[in-house]
Amino acid sequence: MKQYRVGLVGIGAVGTEMVKVLRQRKFPASEIRILARSERDEVVAGETFRVREANPEAFDGLDFVLFAGTEGSKGASKLFGWEAVKRGCVVIDNGDDFRMDPRVPLVIPEINGAALDHHQGFIANPNCSTIITLMALAPLHQAVRIKRFVACTYQSVSGAGRAAIDELEQQVKTWCGGGKPEAKAFPHQIAFNLIPQIGSPKADMPGFTTEEAKMLFETRKILDAPEIRVAATCVRVPVMYAHSVAVHIEFAGPLSPELARKILAQAPGVQLLDDLATGQYPMPLAFQHTDDTGVGRIRADVSVEHGLALFAVGDNIRKGAALNAVQIAEEMIRRKLV
Amino acid sequence: MKQYRVGLVGIGAVGTEMVKVLRQRKFPASEIRILARSERDEVVAGETFRVREANPEAFDGLDFVLFAGTEGSKGASKLFGWEAVKRGCVVIDNGDDFRMDPRVPLVIPEINGAALDHHQGFIANPNCSTIITLMALAPLHQAVRIKRFVACTYQSVSGAGRAAIDELEQQVKTWCGGGKPEAKAFPHQIAFNLIPQIGSPKADMPGFTTEEAKMLFETRKILDAPEIRVAATCVRVPVMYAHSVAVHIEFAGPLSPELARKILAQAPGVQLLDDLATGQYPMPLAFQHTDDTGVGRIRADVSVEHGLALFAVGDNIRKGAALNAVQIAEEMIRRKLV
Repeated sequence: MKQYRVGLVGIGAVGTEMVKVLRQRKFPASEIRILARSERDEVVAGETFRVREANPEAFDGLDFVLFAGTEGSKGASKLFGWEAVKRGCVVIDNGDDFRMDPRVPLVIPEINGAALDHHQGFIANPNCSTIITLMALAPLHQAVRIKRFVACTYQSVSGAGRAAIDELEQQVKTWCGGGKPEAKAFPHQIAFNLIPQIGSPKADMPGFTTEEAKMLFETRKILDAPEIRVAATCVRVPVMYAHSVAVHIEFAGPLSPELARKILAQAPGVQLLDDLATGQYPMPLAFQHTDDTGVGRIRADVSVEHGLALFAVGDNIRKGAALNAVQIAEEMIRRKLV
Repeated sequence: MKQYRVGLVGIGAVGTEMVKVLRQRKFPASEIRILARSERDEVVAGETFRVREANPEAFDGLDFVLFAGTEGSKGASKLFGWEAVKRGCVVIDNGDDFRMDPRVPLVIPEINGAALDHHQGFIANPNCSTIITLMALAPLHQAVRIKRFVACTYQSVSGAGRAAIDELEQQVKTWCGGGKPEAKAFPHQIAFNLIPQIGSPKADMPGFTTEEAKMLFETRKILDAPEIRVAATCVRVPVMYAHSVAVHIEFAGPLSPELARKILAQAPGVQLLDDLATGQYPMPLAFQHTDDTGVGRIRADVSVEHGLALFAVGDNIRKGAALNAVQIAEEMIRRKLV
């Protein structure tokens, strides 16, 4: 079996998980080369790596480069992304700088792997909440076209990186000790609280955040459905891992809850968990550190024609980021694109 | 000033808060008579009360009786509610047994106080999430009719009573000590988790919970708008006090975010807190133990005709229960109905 040399830029929460996922899935990697700001030895996911400094030459000889930057942590892929492509690498970028670039396929392999066929060396990994939402919605959209959906998210702190995970942990410990929690990674205390802002104000959509805008624009690009209408409210919750989303969907025609369940039970990467009577539905604690997107609470939304509501949960660091990026690499191999 | 004899049945989280609210607002009470399962001395909100056993005779001579039972904790108002009315009391019931009873006004004083005028002695306090949602929506509905809204809630554990508050606290402390949290009050761990089920499966609305159905039916009754369409997803979050709700509204005509802000800035019981650029929006920690409903994140929802989205937060134990019940009593006095 052919082996590939894999570069990885950034070793925060997502980069670390990428190493884990590559190993767990036995990705055919003859080399994992970690690049970061400065050279040093570092233990990542239980392995010691000689971290190399990210500079143009450091990308030479790599087949894949995964940029692990989380949303908003600009920099590496902007600086080195297309340079790496020039040097012969296929870039898979977790950041949000190039997702809407027409040269860049925006891919969830289970949904639009075919978008990779005409790639130009640079692929983007979608936003974590968008991935988890579309894992549930795309199989239904394939059966009956979605006209509009409203998505209200319940997003874990890990979406904001390792400092945010540490902060929730520290705030809870401070609270347990009777102290007053301090906020640094987030603008407000997150322990025992909610923050109804993720990302920054979106310049051309008054009142919306960048995170909420992504749900709209990335959905249209991934589903290749420029007419789809999306409204999102994105909220940070005091959960460590796994994002959840309550979705109220309007279809172009009838789609019964029974048929929706049947479709989702067979959808790759989806775990149907839907029996309210026995308390079966997806929850963050049950889906953290796992690969599948859980879907439940499927019901007819009779407040609108052809309405359906559901609740979806997926690990934002895995399917929402690291796993999806590695799956893109695997899909490119499967399609003989590398 | 005329004084009233006030009975209070149940001294859980809501009952205790009712005593606090009565004292804080200097309600003209010549007597606060606490009734419960068994006779005993008990300190409630810093005062020692001789708790009397709830039986028919115990209601004699009372002007108001507040039933403090939380949702689903059936019993007292079913057993004694109409009996107390017969004995000359005005009953204000926090439970959900009689809310849809046509003899019973369902009242949020700021919104439909006039519904009290033809009361038959028995008044119902609406569901906590419904109160908080309608505090934000009713003033807008008065300006431009609401056709439909989607409400996704983020409900604090205190909505499930004192045992639930203790459970989140205990689970967090166990987690801090390195132990494994246990769930008893909730069917699943709530610390660092979400539970997308509040209430039980609603018999005649497949897939919906009783809590989600309340948002629909109570909204119609309170707004006297039987044609309004409502879809809700109700989710428990690891927050101690204050419920939050993300609402996506469809109006019958245009209503700009600017006008919505103007209306809400003047609405009684509402605190407008809406400047995304400077991180101003309501959050549970800021609104716990307070009276106002905070509203922010107001924006045009362009995914639908005449759409508007907002985020509302209110203390479910105060405005969502105890405060609203005491306000009902005050409103009846103001209207000279007692």
